[in-house]
Amino acid sequence: MTDLNFALAQSALERQPFSEPLGAELISFDAHGVELRLPIQDKHKQQHGFVHGGVLAYLADNALTFAGGSALGSAVVTSGFTINYLRPGQGTALLAKARVVHAGKTQAVCQCEVFVLGAAGEAPKLCAVAQGTIAAIDVPKSA
Amino acid sequence: MTDLNFALAQSALERQPFSEPLGAELISFDAHGVELRLPIQDKHKQQHGFVHGGVLAYLADNALTFAGGSALGSAVVTSGFTINYLRPGQGTALLAKARVVHAGKTQAVCQCEVFVLGAAGEAPKLCAVAQGTIAAIDVPKSA
Amino acid sequence: MTDLNFALAQSALERQPFSEPLGAELISFDAHGVELRLPIQDKHKQQHGFVHGGVLAYLADNALTFAGGSALGSAVVTSGFTINYLRPGQGTALLAKARVVHAGKTQAVCQCEVFVLGAAGEAPKLCAVAQGTIAAIDVPKSA
Amino acid sequence: MTDLNFALAQSALERQPFSEPLGAELISFDAHGVELRLPIQDKHKQQHGFVHGGVLAYLADNALTFAGGSALGSAVVTSGFTINYLRPGQGTALLAKARVVHAGKTQAVCQCEVFVLGAAGEAPKLCAVAQGTIAAIDVPKSA
Repeated sequence: MTDLNFALAQSALERQPFSEPLGAELISFDAHGVELRLPIQDKHKQQHGFVHGGVLAYLADNALTFAGGSALGSAVVTSGFTINYLRPGQGTALLAKARVVHAGKTQAVCQCEVFVLGAAGEAPKLCAVAQGTIAAIDVPKSA
Repeated sequence: MTDLNFALAQSALERQPFSEPLGAELISFDAHGVELRLPIQDKHKQQHGFVHGGVLAYLADNALTFAGGSALGSAVVTSGFTINYLRPGQGTALLAKARVVHAGKTQAVCQCEVFVLGAAGEAPKLCAVAQGTIAAIDVPKSA
Repeated sequence: MTDLNFALAQSALERQPFSEPLGAELISFDAHGVELRLPIQDKHKQQHGFVHGGVLAYLADNALTFAGGSALGSAVVTSGFTINYLRPGQGTALLAKARVVHAGKTQAVCQCEVFVLGAAGEAPKLCAVAQGTIAAIDVPKSA
Repeated sequence: MTDLNFALAQSALERQPFSEPLGAELISFDAHGVELRLPIQDKHKQQHGFVHGGVLAYLADNALTFAGGSALGSAVVTSGFTINYLRPGQGTALLAKARVVHAGKTQAVCQCEVFVLGAAGEAPKLCAVAQGTIAAIDVPKSA
Protein backbone atom coordinates (compact mmCIF):
# COMPACT_ATOMS: atom_id res chain seq x y z
CA MET A 1 0.00 0.00 0.00
CA THR A 2 2.76 2.39 0.91
CA ASP A 3 6.53 2.60 0.83
CA LEU A 4 6.72 3.75 4.44
CA ASN A 5 7.53 1.54 7.40
CA PHE A 6 8.71 2.21 10.95
CA ALA A 7 12.39 2.42 10.06
CA LEU A 8 11.85 4.78 7.12
CA ALA A 9 9.45 6.96 9.10
CA GLN A 10 11.94 7.12 11.95
CA SER A 11 14.67 8.08 9.52
CA ALA A 12 12.44 10.82 8.04
CA LEU A 13 11.82 12.18 11.53
CA GLU A 14 15.54 12.17 12.32
CA ARG A 15 16.25 14.07 9.12
CA GLN A 16 13.96 16.92 10.18
CA PRO A 17 16.31 19.59 11.54
CA PHE A 18 13.35 21.08 13.44
CA SER A 19 12.32 17.82 15.11
CA GLU A 20 15.68 16.51 16.24
CA PRO A 21 16.52 19.17 18.89
CA LEU A 22 12.91 19.17 20.10
CA GLY A 23 13.33 15.54 21.03
CA ALA A 24 10.36 13.98 19.22
CA GLU A 25 10.57 10.18 19.03
CA LEU A 26 8.62 7.80 16.83
CA ILE A 27 7.04 5.17 19.09
CA SER A 28 4.88 3.27 16.68
CA PHE A 29 4.02 3.33 13.01
CA ASP A 30 1.71 0.68 11.65
CA ALA A 31 -1.73 0.01 10.25
CA HIS A 32 -3.29 1.15 13.52
CA GLY A 33 -1.72 4.58 13.41
CA VAL A 34 1.27 6.57 14.49
CA GLU A 35 2.58 7.55 17.90
CA LEU A 36 5.06 10.34 18.52
CA ARG A 37 6.46 11.02 21.98
CA LEU A 38 8.10 14.20 23.19
CA PRO A 39 9.68 14.31 26.65
CA ILE A 40 8.78 17.74 28.05
CA GLN A 41 11.72 20.05 28.70
CA ASP A 42 11.89 23.66 29.84
CA LYS A 43 12.65 24.74 26.31
CA HIS A 44 9.19 23.62 25.20
CA LYS A 45 7.38 26.07 27.45
CA GLN A 46 5.72 29.44 27.20
CA GLN A 47 5.92 32.26 29.76
CA HIS A 48 3.50 30.62 32.22
CA GLY A 49 5.43 27.36 32.53
CA PHE A 50 3.14 25.22 30.37
CA VAL A 51 4.06 23.57 27.09
CA HIS A 52 3.80 26.17 24.32
CA GLY A 53 0.77 25.71 22.09
CA GLY A 54 3.19 25.77 19.18
CA VAL A 55 4.79 22.57 20.47
CA LEU A 56 1.43 20.84 20.67
CA ALA A 57 0.62 22.10 17.19
CA TYR A 58 4.00 20.95 15.88
CA LEU A 59 3.56 17.48 17.37
CA ALA A 60 0.00 17.14 16.08
CA ASP A 61 1.07 18.36 12.61
CA ASN A 62 3.88 15.83 12.51
CA ALA A 63 1.77 12.93 13.78
CA LEU A 64 -0.99 13.76 11.26
CA THR A 65 1.56 13.90 8.44
CA PHE A 66 3.10 10.55 9.36
CA ALA A 67 -0.37 9.00 9.68
CA GLY A 68 -1.19 10.34 6.23
CA GLY A 69 2.08 8.90 4.98
CA SER A 70 1.11 5.47 6.31
CA ALA A 71 -1.73 5.51 3.80
CA LEU A 72 -0.33 7.58 0.93
CA GLY A 73 3.40 6.89 1.02
CA SER A 74 6.38 9.04 1.89
CA ALA A 75 5.72 11.83 -0.63
CA VAL A 76 3.08 13.75 1.28
CA VAL A 77 2.45 17.23 2.60
CA THR A 78 -0.02 18.39 5.17
CA SER A 79 -2.60 20.63 3.51
CA GLY A 80 -3.90 21.93 6.80
CA PHE A 81 -5.28 21.01 10.17
CA THR A 82 -7.40 22.17 13.06
CA ILE A 83 -6.32 21.87 16.67
CA ASN A 84 -8.30 22.40 19.85
CA TYR A 85 -6.41 22.80 23.10
CA LEU A 86 -8.16 21.12 26.01
CA ARG A 87 -5.96 21.68 29.05
CA PRO A 88 -2.54 23.13 29.86
CA GLY A 89 0.37 20.93 28.84
CA GLN A 90 1.99 20.11 32.17
CA GLY A 91 3.73 16.82 32.89
CA THR A 92 6.68 14.70 31.89
CA ALA A 93 5.98 13.97 28.24
CA LEU A 94 3.56 14.44 25.36
CA LEU A 95 2.20 11.50 23.42
CA ALA A 96 0.52 12.17 20.06
CA LYS A 97 -1.57 9.36 18.60
CA ALA A 98 -2.75 9.85 15.03
CA ARG A 99 -4.77 7.61 12.77
CA VAL A 100 -6.21 7.68 9.28
CA VAL A 101 -9.94 8.36 9.24
CA HIS A 102 -10.33 8.08 5.49
CA ALA A 103 -7.86 7.78 2.64
CA GLY A 104 -8.41 8.19 -1.07
CA LYS A 105 -5.70 7.93 -3.71
CA THR A 106 -4.29 11.42 -3.27
CA GLN A 107 -5.65 12.64 0.02
CA ALA A 108 -6.13 11.34 3.57
CA VAL A 109 -8.06 12.80 6.47
CA CYS A 110 -6.47 12.00 9.82
CA GLN A 111 -7.23 12.68 13.47
CA CYS A 112 -4.80 13.05 16.34
CA GLU A 113 -5.07 13.02 20.11
CA VAL A 114 -2.27 14.59 22.13
CA PHE A 115 -1.94 13.31 25.69
CA VAL A 116 0.18 14.68 28.46
CA LEU A 117 1.82 12.07 30.65
CA GLY A 118 2.44 12.69 34.34
CA ALA A 119 4.21 10.88 37.12
CA ALA A 120 4.39 7.08 37.04
CA GLY A 121 0.98 5.57 37.73
CA GLU A 122 -0.91 8.68 36.64
CA ALA A 123 -3.34 8.26 33.76
CA PRO A 124 -2.47 10.15 30.58
CA LYS A 125 -4.59 13.25 30.12
CA LEU A 126 -5.94 14.34 26.77
CA CYS A 127 -4.67 17.87 26.18
CA ALA A 128 -5.38 18.53 22.50
CA VAL A 129 -7.28 17.04 19.57
CA ALA A 130 -6.54 17.74 15.93
CA GLN A 131 -7.99 16.88 12.55
CA GLY A 132 -6.20 17.43 9.26
CA THR A 133 -5.79 16.69 5.60
CA ILE A 134 -2.67 15.17 4.08
CA ALA A 135 -2.05 15.23 0.33
CA ALA A 136 0.14 13.05 -1.84
CA ILE A 137 2.55 15.02 -3.99
CA ASP A 138 4.06 14.03 -7.27
CA VAL A 139 7.77 13.58 -6.98
CA PRO A 140 10.27 12.67 -9.67
CA LYS A 141 11.30 9.02 -9.35
CA SER A 142 14.85 10.06 -8.52
CA ALA A 143 13.79 12.16 -5.55
CA MET B 1 -9.18 48.35 26.56
CA THR B 2 -6.30 46.09 27.42
CA ASP B 3 -3.22 46.03 29.58
CA LEU B 4 -0.99 44.91 26.71
CA ASN B 5 1.24 47.19 24.70
CA PHE B 6 4.23 46.62 22.43
CA ALA B 7 6.79 46.56 25.24
CA LEU B 8 4.79 44.14 27.38
CA ALA B 9 4.01 41.89 24.44
CA GLN B 10 7.67 41.87 23.48
CA SER B 11 8.59 40.97 27.03
CA ALA B 12 6.04 38.14 27.04
CA LEU B 13 7.52 36.79 23.81
CA GLU B 14 11.04 36.97 25.25
CA ARG B 15 9.93 35.05 28.31
CA GLN B 16 8.73 32.13 26.18
CA PRO B 17 11.51 29.55 26.41
CA PHE B 18 10.20 27.98 23.20
CA SER B 19 10.16 31.22 21.21
CA GLU B 20 13.54 32.64 22.14
CA PRO B 21 15.80 30.06 20.45
CA LEU B 22 13.50 29.93 17.42
CA GLY B 23 14.25 33.61 16.86
CA ALA B 24 10.71 35.02 16.66
CA GLU B 25 10.63 38.82 16.87
CA LEU B 26 7.70 41.09 17.58
CA ILE B 27 7.56 43.68 14.79
CA SER B 28 4.33 45.50 15.55
CA PHE B 29 1.57 45.36 18.12
CA ASP B 30 -1.20 47.89 17.90
CA ALA B 31 -4.86 48.41 17.13
CA HIS B 32 -4.27 47.25 13.56
CA GLY B 33 -2.89 43.89 14.58
CA VAL B 34 0.25 42.04 15.38
CA GLU B 35 3.28 41.14 13.30
CA LEU B 36 5.79 38.46 14.21
CA ARG B 37 8.91 37.85 12.14
CA LEU B 38 11.08 34.76 12.09
CA PRO B 39 14.33 34.73 10.13
CA ILE B 40 14.51 31.31 8.50
CA GLN B 41 17.39 29.13 9.64
CA ASP B 42 18.31 25.55 8.83
CA LYS B 43 17.00 24.43 12.20
CA HIS B 44 13.46 25.41 11.16
CA LYS B 45 13.33 22.92 8.30
CA GLN B 46 11.96 19.47 7.61
CA GLN B 47 13.66 16.71 5.66
CA HIS B 48 12.97 18.27 2.25
CA GLY B 49 14.62 21.61 3.05
CA PHE B 50 11.44 23.65 3.51
CA VAL B 51 10.30 25.29 6.71
CA HIS B 52 8.62 22.66 8.90
CA GLY B 53 4.84 22.97 9.04
CA GLY B 54 5.21 22.97 12.80
CA VAL B 55 7.14 26.24 12.59
CA LEU B 56 4.40 27.85 10.51
CA ALA B 57 1.82 26.51 12.96
CA TYR B 58 3.84 27.78 15.92
CA LEU B 59 4.18 31.24 14.40
CA ALA B 60 0.50 31.44 13.48
CA ASP B 61 -0.52 30.21 16.95
CA ASN B 62 1.65 32.84 18.59
CA ALA B 63 0.51 35.68 16.34
CA LEU B 64 -3.14 34.73 16.86
CA THR B 65 -2.63 34.64 20.62
CA PHE B 66 -0.96 38.06 20.70
CA ALA B 67 -3.71 39.49 18.49
CA GLY B 68 -6.28 38.09 20.90
CA GLY B 69 -4.33 39.63 23.75
CA SER B 70 -4.51 43.02 22.05
CA ALA B 71 -8.28 42.86 22.55
CA LEU B 72 -8.65 40.80 25.72
CA GLY B 73 -5.53 41.62 27.75
CA SER B 74 -2.51 39.60 28.70
CA ALA B 75 -4.35 36.76 30.45
CA VAL B 76 -5.38 34.76 27.41
CA VAL B 77 -5.02 31.28 26.02
CA THR B 78 -5.59 30.05 22.50
CA SER B 79 -8.57 27.69 22.45
CA GLY B 80 -7.76 26.39 19.02
CA PHE B 81 -7.02 27.29 15.44
CA THR B 82 -7.12 26.08 11.89
CA ILE B 83 -4.21 26.47 9.50
CA ASN B 84 -4.04 25.90 5.76
CA TYR B 85 -0.64 25.61 4.14
CA LEU B 86 -0.52 27.24 0.72
CA ARG B 87 3.01 26.79 -0.55
CA PRO B 88 6.36 25.49 0.73
CA GLY B 89 8.13 27.81 3.15
CA GLN B 90 11.28 28.72 1.30
CA GLY B 91 13.00 32.08 1.67
CA THR B 92 14.80 34.31 4.12
CA ALA B 93 12.15 34.97 6.74
CA LEU B 94 8.56 34.37 7.76
CA LEU B 95 6.23 37.23 8.57
CA ALA B 96 2.98 36.47 10.41
CA LYS B 97 0.32 39.18 10.40
CA ALA B 98 -2.63 38.60 12.71
CA ARG B 99 -5.65 40.72 13.42
CA VAL B 100 -8.80 40.57 15.51
CA VAL B 101 -11.88 39.75 13.45
CA HIS B 102 -14.32 39.98 16.34
CA ALA B 103 -13.90 40.34 20.09
CA GLY B 104 -16.43 39.87 22.86
CA LYS B 105 -15.66 40.17 26.55
CA THR B 106 -14.12 36.76 27.01
CA GLN B 107 -13.35 35.54 23.53
CA ALA B 108 -11.80 36.84 20.32
CA VAL B 109 -11.71 35.35 16.85
CA CYS B 110 -8.55 36.25 14.95
CA GLN B 111 -7.11 35.59 11.53
CA CYS B 112 -3.48 35.34 10.51
CA GLU B 113 -1.58 35.40 7.25
CA VAL B 114 1.93 33.96 7.16
CA PHE B 115 4.14 35.29 4.38
CA VAL B 116 7.50 34.03 3.29
CA LEU B 117 10.00 36.73 2.38
CA GLY B 118 12.58 36.18 -0.32
CA ALA B 119 15.54 38.05 -1.66
CA ALA B 120 15.53 41.86 -1.55
CA GLY B 121 13.04 43.22 -4.05
CA GLU B 122 10.96 40.07 -4.18
CA ALA B 123 7.33 40.37 -3.15
CA PRO B 124 6.33 38.48 0.00
CA LYS B 125 4.44 35.29 -0.78
CA LEU B 126 1.49 34.12 1.25
CA CYS B 127 2.35 30.63 2.50
CA ALA B 128 -0.29 29.91 5.16
CA VAL B 129 -3.56 31.28 6.51
CA ALA B 130 -4.96 30.58 9.93
CA GLN B 131 -8.08 31.34 11.91
CA GLY B 132 -8.43 30.82 15.64
CA THR B 133 -10.18 31.55 18.89
CA ILE B 134 -8.51 33.16 21.88
CA ALA B 135 -10.11 33.08 25.33
CA ALA B 136 -9.59 35.32 28.33
CA ILE B 137 -8.74 33.40 31.48
CA ASP B 138 -9.38 34.42 35.06
CA VAL B 139 -6.17 35.04 36.90
CA PRO B 140 -5.65 36.05 40.52
CA LYS B 141 -4.81 39.76 40.74
CA SER B 142 -1.38 38.92 42.11
CA ALA B 143 -0.50 36.79 39.11
CA MET C 1 -24.66 17.77 35.65
CA THR C 2 -27.03 19.16 33.08
CA ASP C 3 -30.68 20.01 32.70
CA LEU C 4 -30.91 18.27 29.34
CA ASN C 5 -32.33 14.81 28.76
CA PHE C 6 -33.64 12.97 25.71
CA ALA C 7 -37.16 14.41 25.90
CA LEU C 8 -35.98 18.00 26.33
CA ALA C 9 -33.39 17.66 23.60
CA GLN C 10 -36.01 16.21 21.28
CA SER C 11 -38.31 19.09 22.11
CA ALA C 12 -35.53 21.59 21.39
CA LEU C 13 -34.93 19.95 18.03
CA GLU C 14 -38.64 20.06 17.19
CA ARG C 15 -38.77 23.75 18.03
CA GLN C 16 -36.07 24.54 15.45
CA PRO C 17 -37.96 25.83 12.44
CA PHE C 18 -34.95 24.98 10.28
CA SER C 19 -34.66 21.37 11.48
CA GLU C 20 -38.28 20.30 11.34
CA PRO C 21 -38.83 20.39 7.54
CA LEU C 22 -35.38 18.90 6.96
CA GLY C 23 -36.52 15.83 8.85
CA ALA C 24 -33.77 15.49 11.43
CA GLU C 25 -34.64 13.06 14.24
CA LEU C 26 -32.99 12.63 17.62
CA ILE C 27 -32.09 8.94 17.99
CA SER C 28 -30.14 8.93 21.23
CA PHE C 29 -29.01 11.43 23.82
CA ASP C 30 -27.12 10.15 26.83
CA ALA C 31 -23.77 10.06 28.54
CA HIS C 32 -22.29 8.24 25.55
CA GLY C 33 -23.20 10.95 23.11
CA VAL C 34 -25.83 12.09 20.71
CA GLU C 35 -27.20 10.60 17.51
CA LEU C 36 -29.17 12.51 14.90
CA ARG C 37 -30.69 10.80 11.88
CA LEU C 38 -31.81 12.41 8.65
CA PRO C 39 -33.60 10.36 6.00
CA ILE C 40 -32.22 11.55 2.67
CA GLN C 41 -34.73 13.19 0.36
CA ASP C 42 -34.33 14.88 -2.98
CA LYS C 43 -34.61 18.26 -1.33
CA HIS C 44 -31.32 17.64 0.51
CA LYS C 45 -29.29 17.40 -2.67
CA GLN C 46 -27.00 19.58 -4.76
CA GLN C 47 -26.89 19.75 -8.55
CA HIS C 48 -25.00 16.46 -8.94
CA GLY C 49 -27.51 14.37 -7.01
CA PHE C 50 -25.50 14.00 -3.80
CA VAL C 51 -26.46 15.33 -0.39
CA HIS C 52 -25.51 19.02 -0.26
CA GLY C 53 -22.45 19.73 1.85
CA GLY C 54 -24.57 22.26 3.69
CA VAL C 55 -26.84 19.46 4.90
CA LEU C 56 -23.87 17.52 6.25
CA ALA C 57 -22.58 20.70 7.87
CA TYR C 58 -26.01 21.44 9.34
CA LEU C 59 -26.32 17.94 10.78
CA ALA C 60 -22.79 17.98 12.22
CA ASP C 61 -23.36 21.45 13.70
CA ASN C 62 -26.55 20.31 15.34
CA ALA C 63 -25.12 17.05 16.67
CA LEU C 64 -22.08 18.88 18.06
CA THR C 65 -24.32 21.43 19.75
CA PHE C 66 -26.51 18.78 21.36
CA ALA C 67 -23.43 16.86 22.51
CA GLY C 68 -22.11 20.06 24.07
CA GLY C 69 -25.50 20.54 25.71
CA SER C 70 -25.27 17.09 27.25
CA ALA C 71 -22.28 18.36 29.22
CA LEU C 72 -23.05 22.07 29.65
CA GLY C 73 -26.85 22.25 29.79
CA SER C 74 -29.43 23.62 27.41
CA ALA C 75 -28.09 27.18 27.27
CA VAL C 76 -25.30 26.68 24.79
CA VAL C 77 -24.16 28.00 21.45
CA THR C 78 -21.70 26.52 19.01
CA SER C 79 -18.64 28.76 18.79
CA GLY C 80 -17.38 27.09 15.67
CA PHE C 81 -16.47 23.83 14.03
CA THR C 82 -14.40 22.20 11.33
CA ILE C 83 -15.78 19.65 8.94
CA ASN C 84 -13.98 17.40 6.47
CA TYR C 85 -16.02 15.73 3.76
CA LEU C 86 -14.81 12.21 3.02
CA ARG C 87 -17.10 10.85 0.32
CA PRO C 88 -20.26 11.89 -1.52
CA GLY C 89 -23.45 11.62 0.53
CA GLN C 90 -25.43 9.01 -1.36
CA GLY C 91 -27.81 6.60 0.32
CA THR C 92 -31.01 6.36 2.30
CA ALA C 93 -30.18 8.31 5.44
CA LEU C 94 -27.50 10.23 7.30
CA LEU C 95 -26.54 9.34 10.85
CA ALA C 96 -24.51 11.85 12.87
CA LYS C 97 -22.86 10.58 16.04
CA ALA C 98 -21.34 13.23 18.30
CA ARG C 99 -19.58 12.92 21.63
CA VAL C 100 -17.91 15.18 24.13
CA VAL C 101 -14.14 14.99 23.98
CA HIS C 102 -13.51 17.38 26.86
CA ALA C 103 -15.76 19.64 28.89
CA GLY C 104 -14.86 22.43 31.26
CA LYS C 105 -17.36 24.63 33.07
CA THR C 106 -18.14 26.94 30.20
CA GLN C 107 -16.85 25.18 27.10
CA ALA C 108 -16.88 21.72 25.57
CA VAL C 109 -14.95 20.32 22.64
CA CYS C 110 -16.91 17.70 20.74
CA GLN C 111 -16.32 15.45 17.75
CA CYS C 112 -18.84 14.13 15.27
CA GLU C 113 -18.88 11.39 12.67
CA VAL C 114 -21.49 11.55 9.92
CA PHE C 115 -22.31 8.22 8.30
CA VAL C 116 -24.35 7.57 5.21
CA LEU C 117 -26.61 4.54 5.38
CA GLY C 118 -27.41 2.49 2.33
CA ALA C 119 -29.67 -0.38 1.49
CA ALA C 120 -30.54 -2.89 4.20
CA GLY C 121 -27.52 -5.02 5.03
CA GLU C 122 -25.01 -2.49 3.77
CA ALA C 123 -22.49 -1.22 6.29
CA PRO C 124 -22.76 2.49 7.12
CA LYS C 125 -20.08 4.57 5.41
CA LEU C 126 -18.30 7.44 7.10
CA CYS C 127 -18.85 10.50 4.93
CA ALA C 128 -17.76 13.42 7.11
CA VAL C 129 -15.94 14.12 10.37
CA ALA C 130 -16.26 17.30 12.38
CA GLN C 131 -14.75 18.84 15.48
CA GLY C 132 -16.15 21.86 17.27
CA THR C 133 -16.40 24.01 20.34
CA ILE C 134 -19.62 24.62 22.25
CA ALA C 135 -19.92 27.41 24.81
CA ALA C 136 -22.32 27.86 27.71
CA ILE C 137 -24.14 31.17 27.64
CA ASP C 138 -25.56 33.09 30.56
CA VAL C 139 -29.32 33.21 30.43
CA PRO C 140 -31.75 34.87 32.83
CA LYS C 141 -33.36 32.28 35.16
CA SER C 142 -36.73 32.96 33.65
CA ALA C 143 -35.55 32.04 30.18
CA MET D 1 -8.91 30.24 -16.55
CA THR D 2 -12.21 28.65 -15.76
CA ASP D 3 -15.40 27.62 -17.45
CA LEU D 4 -17.56 29.29 -14.81
CA ASN D 5 -19.19 32.69 -15.15
CA PHE D 6 -22.05 34.44 -13.40
CA ALA D 7 -24.79 32.87 -15.52
CA LEU D 8 -23.43 29.34 -15.18
CA ALA D 9 -22.85 29.74 -11.44
CA GLN D 10 -26.38 31.05 -11.04
CA SER D 11 -27.70 28.12 -12.98
CA ALA D 12 -25.72 25.70 -10.79
CA LEU D 13 -27.18 27.32 -7.69
CA GLU D 14 -30.69 27.06 -9.09
CA ARG D 15 -30.18 23.39 -9.81
CA GLN D 16 -29.38 22.68 -6.14
CA PRO D 17 -32.62 21.27 -4.71
CA PHE D 18 -31.37 22.22 -1.24
CA SER D 19 -30.58 25.85 -2.11
CA GLU D 20 -33.70 26.79 -4.04
CA PRO D 21 -36.27 26.61 -1.21
CA LEU D 22 -33.80 28.23 1.19
CA GLY D 23 -33.80 31.28 -1.05
CA ALA D 24 -30.08 31.76 -1.65
CA GLU D 25 -29.32 34.18 -4.48
CA LEU D 26 -26.08 34.70 -6.37
CA ILE D 27 -25.25 38.41 -6.21
CA SER D 28 -21.83 38.53 -7.78
CA PHE D 29 -19.34 36.13 -9.28
CA ASP D 30 -16.15 37.51 -10.70
CA ALA D 31 -12.42 37.75 -10.23
CA HIS D 32 -12.94 39.60 -6.96
CA GLY D 33 -14.97 36.81 -5.43
CA VAL D 34 -18.44 35.56 -4.90
CA GLU D 35 -21.43 36.96 -3.05
CA LEU D 36 -24.45 34.93 -1.98
CA ARG D 37 -27.45 36.55 -0.34
CA LEU D 38 -30.14 34.86 1.72
CA PRO D 39 -33.20 36.83 2.88
CA ILE D 40 -33.86 35.66 6.44
CA GLN D 41 -37.17 33.89 6.95
CA ASP D 42 -38.65 32.17 9.97
CA LYS D 43 -37.85 28.81 8.48
CA HIS D 44 -34.11 29.57 8.80
CA LYS D 45 -34.21 29.85 12.56
CA GLN D 46 -33.44 27.71 15.62
CA GLN D 47 -35.46 27.53 18.80
CA HIS D 48 -34.24 30.89 20.15
CA GLY D 49 -35.29 32.90 17.11
CA PHE D 50 -31.86 33.37 15.58
CA VAL D 51 -30.69 32.04 12.25
CA HIS D 52 -29.70 28.39 12.72
CA GLY D 53 -25.95 27.82 12.69
CA GLY D 54 -26.58 25.24 10.02
CA VAL D 55 -27.86 27.96 7.69
CA LEU D 56 -24.73 30.03 8.22
CA ALA D 57 -22.63 26.92 7.65
CA TYR D 58 -24.60 26.05 4.52
CA LEU D 59 -24.18 29.56 3.11
CA ALA D 60 -20.48 29.68 3.91
CA ASP D 61 -19.98 26.20 2.41
CA ASN D 62 -21.75 27.25 -0.78
CA ALA D 63 -19.92 30.56 -1.11
CA LEU D 64 -16.56 28.88 -0.53
CA THR D 65 -17.37 26.25 -3.15
CA PHE D 66 -18.39 28.84 -5.74
CA ALA D 67 -15.27 30.89 -4.97
CA GLY D 68 -13.20 27.76 -5.49
CA GLY D 69 -15.04 27.16 -8.74
CA SER D 70 -14.12 30.65 -9.92
CA ALA D 71 -10.50 29.50 -9.87
CA LEU D 72 -10.75 25.78 -10.63
CA GLY D 73 -13.81 25.47 -12.87
CA SER D 74 -17.21 23.98 -12.34
CA ALA D 75 -16.06 20.46 -11.44
CA VAL D 76 -15.17 21.03 -7.82
CA VAL D 77 -16.05 19.72 -4.40
CA THR D 78 -15.44 21.25 -1.02
CA SER D 79 -12.96 19.13 0.92
CA GLY D 80 -13.73 20.81 4.19
CA PHE D 81 -13.99 24.09 6.02
CA THR D 82 -13.87 25.77 9.39
CA ILE D 83 -16.46 28.25 10.56
CA ASN D 84 -16.44 30.52 13.59
CA TYR D 85 -19.71 32.09 14.66
CA LEU D 86 -19.27 35.64 15.93
CA ARG D 87 -22.73 36.88 16.85
CA PRO D 88 -26.34 35.70 16.63
CA GLY D 89 -27.81 35.88 13.13
CA GLN D 90 -30.61 38.40 13.56
CA GLY D 91 -31.72 40.74 10.79
CA THR D 92 -33.26 40.86 7.36
CA ALA D 93 -30.74 38.98 5.25
CA LEU D 94 -27.40 37.19 5.23
CA LEU D 95 -24.67 38.15 2.82
CA ALA D 96 -21.76 35.75 2.31
CA LYS D 97 -18.66 37.10 0.60
CA ALA D 98 -16.04 34.55 -0.38
CA ARG D 99 -12.74 34.95 -2.14
CA VAL D 100 -9.85 32.80 -3.26
CA VAL D 101 -6.83 33.12 -1.01
CA HIS D 102 -4.62 30.81 -3.02
CA ALA D 103 -5.25 28.48 -5.94
CA GLY D 104 -3.07 25.75 -7.35
CA LYS D 105 -4.04 23.49 -10.22
CA THR D 106 -6.19 21.09 -8.26
CA GLN D 107 -6.93 22.87 -5.00
CA ALA D 108 -7.94 26.31 -3.80
CA VAL D 109 -8.04 27.76 -0.30
CA CYS D 110 -10.83 30.28 0.14
CA GLN D 111 -12.11 32.52 2.91
CA CYS D 112 -15.64 33.72 3.53
CA GLU D 113 -17.23 36.41 5.64
CA VAL D 114 -20.93 36.13 6.44
CA PHE D 115 -22.64 39.40 7.28
CA VAL D 116 -26.08 39.92 8.69
CA LEU D 117 -27.97 42.87 7.24
CA GLY D 118 -30.41 44.89 9.33
CA ALA D 119 -32.86 47.67 8.71
CA ALA D 120 -32.15 50.17 5.95
CA GLY D 121 -29.27 52.41 6.93
CA GLU D 122 -27.81 49.97 9.41
CA ALA D 123 -24.27 48.78 8.75
CA PRO D 124 -23.88 45.08 7.96
CA LYS D 125 -22.54 43.10 10.90
CA LEU D 126 -20.02 40.33 10.52
CA CYS D 127 -21.59 37.22 12.05
CA ALA D 128 -19.34 34.37 10.89
CA VAL D 129 -15.99 33.76 9.23
CA ALA D 130 -15.01 30.60 7.42
CA GLN D 131 -11.96 29.15 5.72
CA GLY D 132 -12.01 26.12 3.49
CA THR D 133 -10.41 23.99 0.83
CA ILE D 134 -11.97 23.28 -2.54
CA ALA D 135 -10.68 20.51 -4.78
CA ALA D 136 -11.01 20.00 -8.52
CA ILE D 137 -12.42 16.63 -9.45
CA ASP D 138 -11.88 14.72 -12.65
CA VAL D 139 -15.05 14.46 -14.66
CA PRO D 140 -15.63 12.73 -17.95
CA LYS D 141 -15.72 15.26 -20.82
CA SER D 142 -19.34 14.46 -21.45
CA ALA D 143 -20.40 15.35 -17.91
